[in-house]
Amino acid sequence: MMNPSIAVLAGDGIGPEVMAQTLRVLQQVAPQITTKHGLIGGAAYCQYKSHFPTATKQLIDVCDAVLFGSVGGPIEAAEQPQWKNCEVNSILALRNHLKLAINSRPAKFYPALKDISPLKNERLEACDEILILRELLGDVYFGEKRTYTANGYKIAEDTAKYDENQIAQVAHHAFKIAATRKQQVVSVDKANVLDTSKLWRQVFQQVAKQYPEITLTHMLVDNCAMQLILNPAQFDVIATSNLFGDILSDAASALPGSLGMMPSASFSSKGFGLYEPSGGSAPDIAGQNKANPMAQILSLAMMLRHSFDLHTEANAIEKAIENTLDAGFRTQDIMQVGRRAVGTQAFTDEILHHL
Amino acid sequence: MMNPSIAVLAGDGIGPEVMAQTLRVLQQVAPQITTKHGLIGGAAYCQYKSHFPTATKQLIDVCDAVLFGSVGGPIEAAEQPQWKNCEVNSILALRNHLKLAINSRPAKFYPALKDISPLKNERLEACDEILILRELLGDVYFGEKRTYTANGYKIAEDTAKYDENQIAQVAHHAFKIAATRKQQVVSVDKANVLDTSKLWRQVFQQVAKQYPEITLTHMLVDNCAMQLILNPAQFDVIATSNLFGDILSDAASALPGSLGMMPSASFSSKGFGLYEPSGGSAPDIAGQNKANPMAQILSLAMMLRHSFDLHTEANAIEKAIENTLDAGFRTQDIMQVGRRAVGTQAFTDEILHHL
Ligand SMILES: CC(C)[C@H](C(=O)O)[C@@H](O)C(=O)O
Ligand SMILES: CC(C)[C@H](C(=O)O)[C@@H](O)C(=O)O
Repeated sequence: MMNPSIAVLAGDGIGPEVMAQTLRVLQQVAPQITTKHGLIGGAAYCQYKSHFPTATKQLIDVCDAVLFGSVGGPIEAAEQPQWKNCEVNSILALRNHLKLAINSRPAKFYPALKDISPLKNERLEACDEILILRELLGDVYFGEKRTYTANGYKIAEDTAKYDENQIAQVAHHAFKIAATRKQQVVSVDKANVLDTSKLWRQVFQQVAKQYPEITLTHMLVDNCAMQLILNPAQFDVIATSNLFGDILSDAASALPGSLGMMPSASFSSKGFGLYEPSGGSAPDIAGQNKANPMAQILSLAMMLRHSFDLHTEANAIEKAIENTLDAGFRTQDIMQVGRRAVGTQAFTDEILHHL
Repeated sequence: MMNPSIAVLAGDGIGPEVMAQTLRVLQQVAPQITTKHGLIGGAAYCQYKSHFPTATKQLIDVCDAVLFGSVGGPIEAAEQPQWKNCEVNSILALRNHLKLAINSRPAKFYPALKDISPLKNERLEACDEILILRELLGDVYFGEKRTYTANGYKIAEDTAKYDENQIAQVAHHAFKIAATRKQQVVSVDKANVLDTSKLWRQVFQQVAKQYPEITLTHMLVDNCAMQLILNPAQFDVIATSNLFGDILSDAASALPGSLGMMPSASFSSKGFGLYEPSGGSAPDIAGQNKANPMAQILSLAMMLRHSFDLHTEANAIEKAIENTLDAGFRTQDIMQVGRRAVGTQAFTDEILHHL
């Protein structure tokens, strides 16, 4: 790609400070990539009275990928205009604008961090990484919603919807990824109750025929929520619908110990990518140089790999982070009792040092 | 209540064997309760070509409560007529027939079992019991479902629906229970995305005004799935909608270590109760005298307390189970490596011995 450029949308809360550190890493490993900064979330609202202004849309439409931070304000201030519906107006609008159909969230277990995982160490023995692939434009998220009054009572409805193409796209993505990993896909649904899940399961079975080397199993969502806790080592690639993916990916993120380490990537059917931490804007620690920059820096690594084919650079970043952890450096969210945490910047210094 | 009677529906898999043991406990603590046996699930199908035959409906309609086992066959045999849709045709049909509006699932942490919990012991320190209250007749479970073809593609839809009365009923139940416990309710929804969740949150806020001594907090379902793993001790009563309750109650069940210990109760708005293990029919260990009878016996205790006001008897059963665990007895699902498990019957012998 000639003169690649990315849209950098740092957003709110810890977004700007982890983004600043991440751009230092980008500058070191891939200075040829131009960065173009845009506003989103509460930060955008203050200037444009919109969480996702036209200026930002125009900016991302001329870039080759989006590096996103986080949006949203403190819960106490949820009713203030810049924070009201901020996440939905920013994140869901971005997903819809870019038609991001698939979300990919790896939950990686670091040997150096066994002690900060909530799980007993023996349960972590065979755990390496659980990759959750989540459909991102269908289900109950963008379906019809309505609230009305009947017989004097308020009633609300949300309709979940899937067509077979949406599902097939996730299935193909899952089987292709699985072919580069452990040759297994667990498809998660609630096919004993939902029509959308029955279709989901049918399509996965159908698409699976094109990937005879991959083992496909089906699991009900309630059982999956339990199995993730009891025996996470059984999973490698999990593929699921939008709402179940929302819930299960947060559950999986908890297992290694901190959402602050979890990157994510979202792709359109044309392969355009948006990269962002799985966690939120953490307003409680914003501006204090306490946030873990791992999620944002690992999102950058995912971007380099998937949007720019810069595999060496992506691997180098991931290795540098592992080495930083192995050398004993910790931000506060992954610190053990009695140790001393380093700040966002100092932690990034170490990553740069190991690069 | 004069001459109380209960419908005993043992069902399939491990149902009959854990039920047999549970009835020994009933016989010892409350012999005045008459038991009437009915068929359900695959067992019913074989005789009546129906998973929930009229004979069983008639039986439960003249009883004061239902003690239910479990239904369903091996996954490999899912397409055989007696197992096809067996759970939905039995469990959902029962819930609908009895109009069971609220499901109550306590996940209790036993000090004696710290080592079998998947969580590190320090995370369990302040954990006692998490009670999940789940709405059971609304949401996407009984809403409109359809599968059709448009433009040559298959499309499926499921509609989630709630009216304010359904929600208010759960809210009142939650606040009343919380008043007897830790004075706190966490209401779980996805109010940033769903209309049903927005209504859920409004109604909870409204009803909360009648219970000023209870602290109500709201949590998004994705965050709750994560918080259950990271910091279960923060929860006492969780109240949530049907689908989220299905997922979260299974996640919570995993935390103490085994679904085999988890009872549940479901109530109609008139207070009629059905009591059943949270887990399923476990066909892989059925008929082997290996199943943990705790879930079924604790369901009996819930029945004695809620349907028959037999608090002393219910407490005695719960205490006998704790003593049995403290004395070192374990079924295979809660056994530590290197120890020897006892069977379903021998474990129940010990419970009876401690009664
Ligand atoms: C903010 C919210 C709309 C979003 C979602 O539910 O998808 C978030 O939870 C996520 O997982 O990215
Ligand atoms: C069998 C199934 C329909 C049921 C549910 O989803 O409610 C089960 O998972 C449960 O939790 O009791």
